[in-house]
Amino acid sequence: MLKTYLYKDLSKEQIQELVNRNTDPNHAIQDTVLNIMEEVKAHGDKALKSYAKQFDKVDLEQLYLGQDDIDALASTISRDQMRALEIAFQNIHKFHQTQLKRERTVETMPGVKCWREVRPIEKVGLYIPGGSAVLPSTLLMLGVPARIAGCKEIVVCSPPQNNDKINGFVAYCLKLLQINKIYLVGGAQAIAAMAYGTETIPKVNKIFGPGNQFVTKAKSLIQGLTDVSIDMPAGPSEVLVIADESCNPAYVAADLLAQAEHGIDSQAILVATSTTITEAVQAELKKQLEVLPRKELAEKAMQNSYMLVADTLQEAMDFSNQYAPEHLILETNEWKTLINRVLNAGSVFLGHLTPESAGDYASGTNHTLPTSGFARSYSGVSVDSFVKKITFQHISEEGLQQIGSTVEILAELEGLHAHKNAVSIRKK
Amino acid sequence: MLKTYLYKDLSKEQIQELVNRNTDPNHAIQDTVLNIMEEVKAHGDKALKSYAKQFDKVDLEQLYLGQDDIDALASTISRDQMRALEIAFQNIHKFHQTQLKRERTVETMPGVKCWREVRPIEKVGLYIPGGSAVLPSTLLMLGVPARIAGCKEIVVCSPPQNNDKINGFVAYCLKLLQINKIYLVGGAQAIAAMAYGTETIPKVNKIFGPGNQFVTKAKSLIQGLTDVSIDMPAGPSEVLVIADESCNPAYVAADLLAQAEHGIDSQAILVATSTTITEAVQAELKKQLEVLPRKELAEKAMQNSYMLVADTLQEAMDFSNQYAPEHLILETNEWKTLINRVLNAGSVFLGHLTPESAGDYASGTNHTLPTSGFARSYSGVSVDSFVKKITFQHISEEGLQQIGSTVEILAELEGLHAHKNAVSIRKK
Repeated sequence: MLKTYLYKDLSKEQIQELVNRNTDPNHAIQDTVLNIMEEVKAHGDKALKSYAKQFDKVDLEQLYLGQDDIDALASTISRDQMRALEIAFQNIHKFHQTQLKRERTVETMPGVKCWREVRPIEKVGLYIPGGSAVLPSTLLMLGVPARIAGCKEIVVCSPPQNNDKINGFVAYCLKLLQINKIYLVGGAQAIAAMAYGTETIPKVNKIFGPGNQFVTKAKSLIQGLTDVSIDMPAGPSEVLVIADESCNPAYVAADLLAQAEHGIDSQAILVATSTTITEAVQAELKKQLEVLPRKELAEKAMQNSYMLVADTLQEAMDFSNQYAPEHLILETNEWKTLINRVLNAGSVFLGHLTPESAGDYASGTNHTLPTSGFARSYSGVSVDSFVKKITFQHISEEGLQQIGSTVEILAELEGLHAHKNAVSIRKK
Repeated sequence: MLKTYLYKDLSKEQIQELVNRNTDPNHAIQDTVLNIMEEVKAHGDKALKSYAKQFDKVDLEQLYLGQDDIDALASTISRDQMRALEIAFQNIHKFHQTQLKRERTVETMPGVKCWREVRPIEKVGLYIPGGSAVLPSTLLMLGVPARIAGCKEIVVCSPPQNNDKINGFVAYCLKLLQINKIYLVGGAQAIAAMAYGTETIPKVNKIFGPGNQFVTKAKSLIQGLTDVSIDMPAGPSEVLVIADESCNPAYVAADLLAQAEHGIDSQAILVATSTTITEAVQAELKKQLEVLPRKELAEKAMQNSYMLVADTLQEAMDFSNQYAPEHLILETNEWKTLINRVLNAGSVFLGHLTPESAGDYASGTNHTLPTSGFARSYSGVSVDSFVKKITFQHISEEGLQQIGSTVEILAELEGLHAHKNAVSIRKK
């Protein structure tokens, strides 16, 4: 069912082909998105209500839900569901709270002290997609690090569900995060609202979260057009599984299908160390696919996907590092020795009992990760994404004597005389 | 000479006006830059040589200088200059090497272990501007953290100087950084070369460095068009000085002029706690400007600049946090109490003896900093900018029992059955 290649038969160009993502730069929708952004900038809330009518088929009197509505919706979910969301919240919190540490002061020369201090980004915007999928987990993955960072204002936008409501799971996560308002705005108009601000929705400094191609396009456009930044460029989700003889083909197939059910543009790749493995996984894929509710969607995603047979685990790792997967699962007993060889990846799942879905929801790591090869230069979302590190320095009289002439010489050789004078005038 | 406003007389809108940067989105040059990028993508080295002829007026036989050329050029500078560059190198190294720490493993539930590991970005591109200004300091500010991070390939591009050479100071910094090659390519074509790769110049994963409006535009375009990322959006340099009665007006004026001499679009702002101070600084500005070699340029920059009189230091800090300056100098004896109130800034200079120019060259902090209000959401360049943090997780049998049902419930409520199955199949 999945195309299979032999690594040793591939030319450098063919490997490059396999590594390349099918990214559609969405030029076709650029004008639509720019138009929506202009409308929201010019007409604010009025434009948002009109888009709600047009796209979400709902007449919104008020663009947000407050604490009472959130409480009421949150109480509609079962105890078990509440408990599961609480455990996810706790694990994500436990892992992320260790990510920020006070750094020590460095005295680079006697009397010249330098250090960094962490400050939260004051206003952040979280976009939680709606539509067919409901993603309370995304709200936890963005809301928890925002809270730990200490962001003063956390603006959450999500398209209205069931007329002018939101989903009860999302409502329960808002309560866990102590966020008492959610804006019922979806799509590119939500990104525009948070980037420009409207009468109701505050302008933020940075926007986070996944979304459809309109949301993604709007995020990439605001980066160039405004002073608002974004978490990272977005592309379709992807997994790369490395498996050797020690693997259980049923587990491997389950992991590939978990990726494939995300959407038709998802990519699931298996790099195995023998054709025995790829064949066994093929058989399992067929079996498991039959009973999958999202079968059709997963089947389509399989068309972008492939298997690769490598001679050794090292060869498999080499390919993985070239591909730079969002998710990497190492289904081998040798996972410990492979850790140091992982150079490019978003999040890594070690051994036979660590499925990606554990990290998607509840292990504690973040699921907002770099796709489309951006794992070569981007990290996933963490508390770091919600803060700035500001450098401070203090120079004493002794320090000025120590460093003064160095600065004067360097300023002079760069031809910047006023820079030099700022030191000279103080040395007098 | 500088416009002066009284903070208490300003409306919210007027404050917003003062906070806004005069950023020209450079739409006019977009087509030119896109055209250059297309040419380089299509014709590689040939296009680069043709642009060298057109823009740099030089016929390049070879697009780079190797170790011998670098050694020869480096030996042309004086001992004092070498020593100054060495001290800057050492201080920058000393400060930056403390920025990466091993993080501990978190066991979020018994048997569920999560941690982050740091990996260098493999290939980085550093752009060092040429033309009228020569900026060896920029090479140190980018090269030192790249070396500390452990980047495997450091590609340096800079426009040719004196026909087919580079400046001796830049050459000496290359030696300090143990970089044995420099590509003689400038402008948008250099950014395109590092983003797409040519026969001679390797494609990189992330591009760093300042530049003119063509370079800046090319960097912002490649972010949307390729899988290459950039350090941060760039704008004109800026300083905000907060001064009270304890300040020395001559120092304040010197710091404002050091900013103004950067370029006509630079912005230098003084927020003082009395008109006595602003008047004294005005007088000093006039005096110091007279003897400045770059007088004309600084005078023009002064037209974008202004003074603001606040009632208290807190009011001054409030304005500064709204403005979010690239550089913030606190020329007051109260600098210690202000540190915690700095919410948005790139780099902060504390007290009367810590001029910005110390940090520009040699204190140890980085001078590649967020401008145009991006200090609200971006940090300056650091070792962090040259690495990714990859999350790892391992789940044991016990861990799977602990976390399994939580993941199953959450996958089910999100309607992702294959996600659920990836856990269920392992629990059997």
